[in-house]
Amino acid sequence: MPEPLFDRVALIGIGLIGSSIAHAVRRGGLARHIAVQTRREETLAEAHGLGLGDSYTTDPAEAVAGADLVILCVPVGACEGIAQAIAPALKPGAVVSDVGSVKTSVVRQMQPHLPESVHFVPGHPVAGTEHSGPAAGFAELFDNRWCILTPPAGTDPDAVGRLSAFWTACGANVEIMAPEHHDMVLAITSHVPHLIAYNIVGTAAHLEEVTSSEVMKFSAGGFRDFTRIAASDPTMWRDVFLHNKEAVLEMLGRFTEDLTALQRAIRFGDGDTLFDLFTKTRAIRRGIIEAGQETAAPDFGRSPHARAQEPGE
Amino acid sequence: MPEPLFDRVALIGIGLIGSSIAHAVRRGGLARHIAVQTRREETLAEAHGLGLGDSYTTDPAEAVAGADLVILCVPVGACEGIAQAIAPALKPGAVVSDVGSVKTSVVRQMQPHLPESVHFVPGHPVAGTEHSGPAAGFAELFDNRWCILTPPAGTDPDAVGRLSAFWTACGANVEIMAPEHHDMVLAITSHVPHLIAYNIVGTAAHLEEVTSSEVMKFSAGGFRDFTRIAASDPTMWRDVFLHNKEAVLEMLGRFTEDLTALQRAIRFGDGDTLFDLFTKTRAIRRGIIEAGQETAAPDFGRSPHARAQEPGE
Repeated sequence: MPEPLFDRVALIGIGLIGSSIAHAVRRGGLARHIAVQTRREETLAEAHGLGLGDSYTTDPAEAVAGADLVILCVPVGACEGIAQAIAPALKPGAVVSDVGSVKTSVVRQMQPHLPESVHFVPGHPVAGTEHSGPAAGFAELFDNRWCILTPPAGTDPDAVGRLSAFWTACGANVEIMAPEHHDMVLAITSHVPHLIAYNIVGTAAHLEEVTSSEVMKFSAGGFRDFTRIAASDPTMWRDVFLHNKEAVLEMLGRFTEDLTALQRAIRFGDGDTLFDLFTKTRAIRRGIIEAGQETAAPDFGRSPHARAQEPGE
Repeated sequence: MPEPLFDRVALIGIGLIGSSIAHAVRRGGLARHIAVQTRREETLAEAHGLGLGDSYTTDPAEAVAGADLVILCVPVGACEGIAQAIAPALKPGAVVSDVGSVKTSVVRQMQPHLPESVHFVPGHPVAGTEHSGPAAGFAELFDNRWCILTPPAGTDPDAVGRLSAFWTACGANVEIMAPEHHDMVLAITSHVPHLIAYNIVGTAAHLEEVTSSEVMKFSAGGFRDFTRIAASDPTMWRDVFLHNKEAVLEMLGRFTEDLTALQRAIRFGDGDTLFDLFTKTRAIRRGIIEAGQETAAPDFGRSPHARAQEPGE
């Protein structure tokens, strides 16, 4: 067994991501002690029942006391309050990080409150499922996924290196990026896709011509894939849109502009424009499969046979 | 072994759907002879190599000669030409059907050309994957999916009953619907979802701020699920949009209206509107799982662990 990377890790928040980190830390022997904190007593009891940590508290300051690595695993909107609460209790030299899907806002919220004596290295593991809560986590969630770190200028390279080694040990590949660029990349690869998935599910639920029961019955034609995304945690996603407003509105503007052009092509029967786009999009799909971020299995079918074809399962 | 439902089945077109029907017919012993037709010699040779039929031809009239059931498995835009080509060769009493994702247009294209002596029962199995071609098919594609039949008024109930029994034997549940209603239901559950998936993949591919390589690397945050849909067959989908123009434009108008409201909520920081929608959409997801049209497994993770949790695999 190699030496653990950190003596004591504090997880502030124990939902899907927090609990998956706990499992990954256990799997890799990455810390001697996991301190679990969450606000609600019931959630804490659930985490305790699942054996996710070594100590449990609803008090964030108590959880971070003596911790070498503190990771906030909470909705983006909760970061400032937690930074204020934990600041006086942080151990000098500790690495303080988070897992939020927005980075400029997290820096803005947390940095002013953190003492000079700690290393603040914001992070974002680009992984998730549509399930929430402490029971949703699993150790493999980060395997072969990317974790983006956005250390502010002047951050101690050794602290960045240790956090990077931690995520690598959790199974992830690590990329360093400026927070502003991160927020633009995620706006198009994650935030706008979620917004339009939520939106079409909402549209479908409020039609006069088509009943909700029909929408559900005939969802295998494509709609059901959107509902998976649109079942993600509401609080987390509300905060993402409120805290990455500029990049989301910018990317949404591009999306709408392109959609208007497609709408015109349909209205005027311009099949060539449609065919050209539908052909080009296949190349992006192939690139994602080659980048190891997706499997080539025909998951639309969701059949035992289709699944059996999938390589590497 | 029960008596086959049809003596001779002719499949006009042998892509994903045609080849899946061939497999399902074999699995269930649903016909004594499968006649396979497709336009291109290479595709026909591929179908032959896969052993999908009992006879092979590029001539649709030759394929339908003597067939008791004829199913067009071609892009919607090809239906009229095929109806003209097969009309003189159709066996009196034969059931003539199709699998197109649009129904009013198929009725308009085919009905005028078909002789009075055959039974025209348009159909649409709501199932598919992102893969195309004769090698993409598998027998289980239709299992527990819906097949919608849209027989014109006055169609022989016995012919509808026989086609319904055929699809049931292929594993599907059958629903009867008016073609106009079908096209509205599919516009929201399938056509608009595909259009916005194609659209966002196109948008992401043409940004200055974010490279395609970044889009692919960080696609696990939601984007990759859209690329799966956006990898579907370009010809088939071009035809769907050209032939279901009115219903698609109507539903797209609704989608855009709702998206504009969400955009305003983001711009003005209206978190309650976002949270309310994101909460309601979860109920639709649960309904789809309860309706057996989706699994509850956390497929976002695409991990062996996540897959292992899936019931009924």
